[in-house]
Amino acid sequence: MNAIKDSVHDYIPVDPVARALLDTPELQRLRHIKQLSTVRLVYPSANHTRFEHSLGVYHLASRALDHLGVDDDRAAHVRAAALLHDIGHGPYGHQTEEVIMRRTGDHHDEIGDLLSSSVAGDVLEQRGLDLERVAGLVRGEGELGQLVSGELDVDRMDYLVRDAHHTGVPYGTIDHGRLVRVLRLREGRLVLAPGNVQTAESMLLARSLMNGVLYRHHVSRIAGAMLDRASERLLDETALEIEEFRRMADHDLLVALCESVPELGRRIERRDLYKRAAWASLWEVPAWVPDLDYEDVRAAERDIADAAGVDAGEVIVDVPSRPTLKESETRVVVDGTIRRLEEASELVGALRNTERAQWRLGVYAPGASTADVRDAAADVLELSD
Amino acid sequence: MNAIKDSVHDYIPVDPVARALLDTPELQRLRHIKQLSTVRLVYPSANHTRFEHSLGVYHLASRALDHLGVDDDRAAHVRAAALLHDIGHGPYGHQTEEVIMRRTGDHHDEIGDLLSSSVAGDVLEQRGLDLERVAGLVRGEGELGQLVSGELDVDRMDYLVRDAHHTGVPYGTIDHGRLVRVLRLREGRLVLAPGNVQTAESMLLARSLMNGVLYRHHVSRIAGAMLDRASERLLDETALEIEEFRRMADHDLLVALCESVPELGRRIERRDLYKRAAWASLWEVPAWVPDLDYEDVRAAERDIADAAGVDAGEVIVDVPSRPTLKESETRVVVDGTIRRLEEASELVGALRNTERAQWRLGVYAPGASTADVRDAAADVLELSD
Amino acid sequence: MNAIKDSVHDYIPVDPVARALLDTPELQRLRHIKQLSTVRLVYPSANHTRFEHSLGVYHLASRALDHLGVDDDRAAHVRAAALLHDIGHGPYGHQTEEVIMRRTGDHHDEIGDLLSSSVAGDVLEQRGLDLERVAGLVRGEGELGQLVSGELDVDRMDYLVRDAHHTGVPYGTIDHGRLVRVLRLREGRLVLAPGNVQTAESMLLARSLMNGVLYRHHVSRIAGAMLDRASERLLDETALEIEEFRRMADHDLLVALCESVPELGRRIERRDLYKRAAWASLWEVPAWVPDLDYEDVRAAERDIADAAGVDAGEVIVDVPSRPTLKESETRVVVDGTIRRLEEASELVGALRNTERAQWRLGVYAPGASTADVRDAAADVLELSD
Amino acid sequence: MNAIKDSVHDYIPVDPVARALLDTPELQRLRHIKQLSTVRLVYPSANHTRFEHSLGVYHLASRALDHLGVDDDRAAHVRAAALLHDIGHGPYGHQTEEVIMRRTGDHHDEIGDLLSSSVAGDVLEQRGLDLERVAGLVRGEGELGQLVSGELDVDRMDYLVRDAHHTGVPYGTIDHGRLVRVLRLREGRLVLAPGNVQTAESMLLARSLMNGVLYRHHVSRIAGAMLDRASERLLDETALEIEEFRRMADHDLLVALCESVPELGRRIERRDLYKRAAWASLWEVPAWVPDLDYEDVRAAERDIADAAGVDAGEVIVDVPSRPTLKESETRVVVDGTIRRLEEASELVGALRNTERAQWRLGVYAPGASTADVRDAAADVLELSD
Repeated sequence: MNAIKDSVHDYIPVDPVARALLDTPELQRLRHIKQLSTVRLVYPSANHTRFEHSLGVYHLASRALDHLGVDDDRAAHVRAAALLHDIGHGPYGHQTEEVIMRRTGDHHDEIGDLLSSSVAGDVLEQRGLDLERVAGLVRGEGELGQLVSGELDVDRMDYLVRDAHHTGVPYGTIDHGRLVRVLRLREGRLVLAPGNVQTAESMLLARSLMNGVLYRHHVSRIAGAMLDRASERLLDETALEIEEFRRMADHDLLVALCESVPELGRRIERRDLYKRAAWASLWEVPAWVPDLDYEDVRAAERDIADAAGVDAGEVIVDVPSRPTLKESETRVVVDGTIRRLEEASELVGALRNTERAQWRLGVYAPGASTADVRDAAADVLELSD
Repeated sequence: MNAIKDSVHDYIPVDPVARALLDTPELQRLRHIKQLSTVRLVYPSANHTRFEHSLGVYHLASRALDHLGVDDDRAAHVRAAALLHDIGHGPYGHQTEEVIMRRTGDHHDEIGDLLSSSVAGDVLEQRGLDLERVAGLVRGEGELGQLVSGELDVDRMDYLVRDAHHTGVPYGTIDHGRLVRVLRLREGRLVLAPGNVQTAESMLLARSLMNGVLYRHHVSRIAGAMLDRASERLLDETALEIEEFRRMADHDLLVALCESVPELGRRIERRDLYKRAAWASLWEVPAWVPDLDYEDVRAAERDIADAAGVDAGEVIVDVPSRPTLKESETRVVVDGTIRRLEEASELVGALRNTERAQWRLGVYAPGASTADVRDAAADVLELSD
Repeated sequence: MNAIKDSVHDYIPVDPVARALLDTPELQRLRHIKQLSTVRLVYPSANHTRFEHSLGVYHLASRALDHLGVDDDRAAHVRAAALLHDIGHGPYGHQTEEVIMRRTGDHHDEIGDLLSSSVAGDVLEQRGLDLERVAGLVRGEGELGQLVSGELDVDRMDYLVRDAHHTGVPYGTIDHGRLVRVLRLREGRLVLAPGNVQTAESMLLARSLMNGVLYRHHVSRIAGAMLDRASERLLDETALEIEEFRRMADHDLLVALCESVPELGRRIERRDLYKRAAWASLWEVPAWVPDLDYEDVRAAERDIADAAGVDAGEVIVDVPSRPTLKESETRVVVDGTIRRLEEASELVGALRNTERAQWRLGVYAPGASTADVRDAAADVLELSD
Repeated sequence: MNAIKDSVHDYIPVDPVARALLDTPELQRLRHIKQLSTVRLVYPSANHTRFEHSLGVYHLASRALDHLGVDDDRAAHVRAAALLHDIGHGPYGHQTEEVIMRRTGDHHDEIGDLLSSSVAGDVLEQRGLDLERVAGLVRGEGELGQLVSGELDVDRMDYLVRDAHHTGVPYGTIDHGRLVRVLRLREGRLVLAPGNVQTAESMLLARSLMNGVLYRHHVSRIAGAMLDRASERLLDETALEIEEFRRMADHDLLVALCESVPELGRRIERRDLYKRAAWASLWEVPAWVPDLDYEDVRAAERDIADAAGVDAGEVIVDVPSRPTLKESETRVVVDGTIRRLEEASELVGALRNTERAQWRLGVYAPGASTADVRDAAADVLELSD
């Protein structure tokens, strides 16, 4: 079997189906989509892509399937799903996810339509694999779908260690070798073998620490918010269709933004970013703020810009959704029974509170106008001091 | 400046005082005391020593002192204390700590008497360093003593990353590069700079995870308990004095035990260990059990052996002290004021509960008699099912 | 001092001049130029950029300067030169170097003109640094210029370890910690301290091994040759000026090629590359082949295409220059005298021969026509079997 | 299958035979024999043992056997041989090899007699494995014996990467993942697949570089020579039999030496070593010196001591054997035929010369007498200046 050298997992053996899938335009495109998009503006080494990550997820899935002793047909579908799980991402990954959702209603893990009209789909069919089963696994359906997209999925196992390797931030270095060994299928669910409450906790903790210093770093959030607004304008102001937009790679979008929305595009390209005019915790904002929808947010931006006397495009309000903690539904076997991790772990509840404590409203503007925008935002959004 | 190659910190520059201290018998002896003593029976690669760890602590102290901008005289004392902080350890480090405490009342970080009659003490005096100040720093006295022995000390920064490197368990890989950079001296205390609640939490979490899989692994605890009982017999049954005992190296003690207490010594040497007859959480033992003192425990062992019909030496009862969480007193600057970490962090309280959840009473016996001993222990210690 | 987290060197302290330089468009552009350009088509994780590499070179230069005890003014110029040493690179780095050379005569390490009309140049002047001295250092002038661009430069120290980290190929992991410590200035030259013949050899060996599996991998060479021909056509067939071309970033060029030279651009983007029609060692080609200049090569391509009956653009002849071994001029102190490494090392001569043994002529064509092109190339280039 | 966590290979799956072998006294003893014996006096972190190394060799053998597709029975014998290959080592490994050879004629890889009277031998027989076949494999017999003890064996693959990990010296980090994948059985020999001349070279180069800075470091050689002389005296002057001696662990020998030969034993324990009185290359010694046998060497020591006016035991002459380069017999497939590596590689000849260039005669004595001993040694051994 062929093997590909990877910075994280060393040699990754690649089966013939995977080999064929790797050559398709759908997977080659992922070479041009960075895993951490705007995080690289904070951590200069964070330039790894969804292509290598997809290989890593495929690899961990293969190893987990070996340990679980899953039969060949099911395993083949899971391996294909693992490799393809990210082809639904738009340019800059999660940073354009909401633009695409607002215009198509699709989440990136909905790859059914894409598969049915793609070279990758043809490859699957030629090899006797069922497209709909693969798409279902990517959506997390079925007991093995949880391996690809669930509380314990190999997706996050790979990205935590990979992001750690390529940024230098050690918090993500979980014991993935152990995790893929202690997975079990019990009562139609993927669970962790007895004695692994701490193994499960370690993954939640890693993610929580990585959230704080990496995934939600304010510089990355500012650049991401600028990218969102720039993408909206690109779609509103040019003939570009959303279906074309979502199939772009990072470089296509960056060049298009530099050309069509240069006042934001050039800033992103040169890391000449807006600054924080406001940065408020859950306890500093009124209860209605976290529930603002996109239209409300854009209206607030206009109100703040008016009040501050700046151009409408020069204020960005960034309201993250209310914090959740998906992994807390992880199941572990404790004293012979399957239990939800949050029942078995003291830390899960605390992490949920930590998530709440880390929530921040951001209001961003060009450096010169942050003082004015801060005051206006405090008024419009009723921020407490 | 001379430099020594280290597996964890690469080249460690060594100043002339440190160079001279390294050549003393007191530090050379640490080459023969393993950092993780009986943990190596679980993790075969865990053979690193307190010598290399002492170098690592010296190195992190030096870097922290540079960042803190401490003056030369104070820095010289702290560096010497960092290098010497472990010379008070007996053979097998923490595993003989209680034997020594029971007979001398001394804790391993009390090195004053040792220094005053040692080559290392002579070196310090020749170089114009004050022995008592160095010993005080090792005890954690003064604001800089906290750097050597405190909630945020470089001792644990080094051992977490070193233990991770030499065992392969990734949980200990904290961001020590960041930690030494964000230390500050404020109001006579060592604190973490603003924005570092999570940095502090990461160190507590690392230690908690390492506790679970490494430091308190039951195989290591069994071997440690056997070592304690064997050491007691060695001191009771031979002419060996405690002052000689505590200055032994690992190999001296192992050879002495194999010779004088072979029924335990040989077992430790060959990893032919007792097994768990009982293993009970805080919720499975009566409230008086965690408070048993050493004499009570030995009496319980005799009672259990009687009831089980085995030799007195073939039952070991292992009662850890009640869980504490020293790092929770770490101070961080939040919103301009110095706060205790547990006030600023949701996770600290949860970790305290995790410590309680991980507490286990152990009763150990040779494999053949565990069933009988289990029943007897349940009776004597009133264990619930 | 501020610090930036790096995947290779951990925290890199950044002085105020460097801080200001990092924010200039000239350095920010390097975020968009990959260090290994087309090598990433073989090693999927190799996506690191010249931006992070420049930071690494700056860091190693800073450390070497500390060890060498160089005065502040000279050190400031060297640090700036280290940080700026790659701003002269065109898109895709070395892969467009020859296109640019053919049209401008400039090598990438000639940054004098660029500096004098750039924001980075303004920053240098504001900080009292001499542009021409910085440019001279980048060209390798003076004894400290050798540190930036010479046989022992920190440039290659950084790229070897960085390329190893991001590809997973271990051969590049040299002991850079030792190298920066054993540099000495003697008689106006940078040399290695006594006892370091092997230290110097290790760097040559690392590069030779990396050449074989990484830098000169045939897939990377094919993609690079396609990029060269596509760039020529882009410049010939569109209004794009060479001065604009050389300031492009990777994404600009890729988008331009996909648009204007899609038959090559799309292939590069999708890794749908030409295949090897011929691959011949020095001993399989006539003596005149390695000396062919660019016009000769293009003529040979047309002749081969004619003979094979394919379109002219569908044959690429790739003739590397004759092998050299620059590092062999490295100086080391042996028995008190400065000697050239090749006098002191048995391995240097052998490596020179290894370089010759690894030389390969390549002839590339689309997969369908390689058989025909192979025969035609054998005729035109008089290849032996 | 059970798995053991290793610092180098992460989880090592352990089959039932290996599990049983690991619990035998013969393998448990290897926990107490350090892989790098006296090298740890130079590299403080180098405390890893032959136990973990044996696990690593077992692991790489298992992976290589999988890739080679060897049948179960043969594979079971090879895996057992890999795990047991070091049980013949005396205390301090190679450092007592010659003492044992001189008195028994046995090399450490002759484990036949040992196996037939050991618990490990019983385990093998109970599991239906043939002791003599296992012993033969350890001696390198048969085509698969080459995998355990040959030019391309997994023994050196493991120790190179393990020694690198535990010392911090990067030179040993070979691409063992690739090496185990490109092994092939051809014409009754183990060879490397086509395209792997460089893969083979990389292993020779790694070993050559590690020789220079690690395995043959003069401090380690001095301590090793002191250990040899001290062991001779222990055997000459006490009732200790060679059969007991060779079954000792490191700690047994160190304690015995400290007790019975304290003038050397204590020095080794405290790293208070002899110094170099002479250190001469092949070109500085008469042609007869490298061929001196042990009796000649001891006579020379006495002559030098006489001439220098010091005690006979205070001069040690250390004459390494003439350099060889075993790996050069490695076979690789080049252009379809199996060739010896030295025919296919320019570097092999150069490395052979490098080995000669690194050869050194050492004469060691206590620090105070090195000047006198130097002069006497120059006379007796006819050293040129």
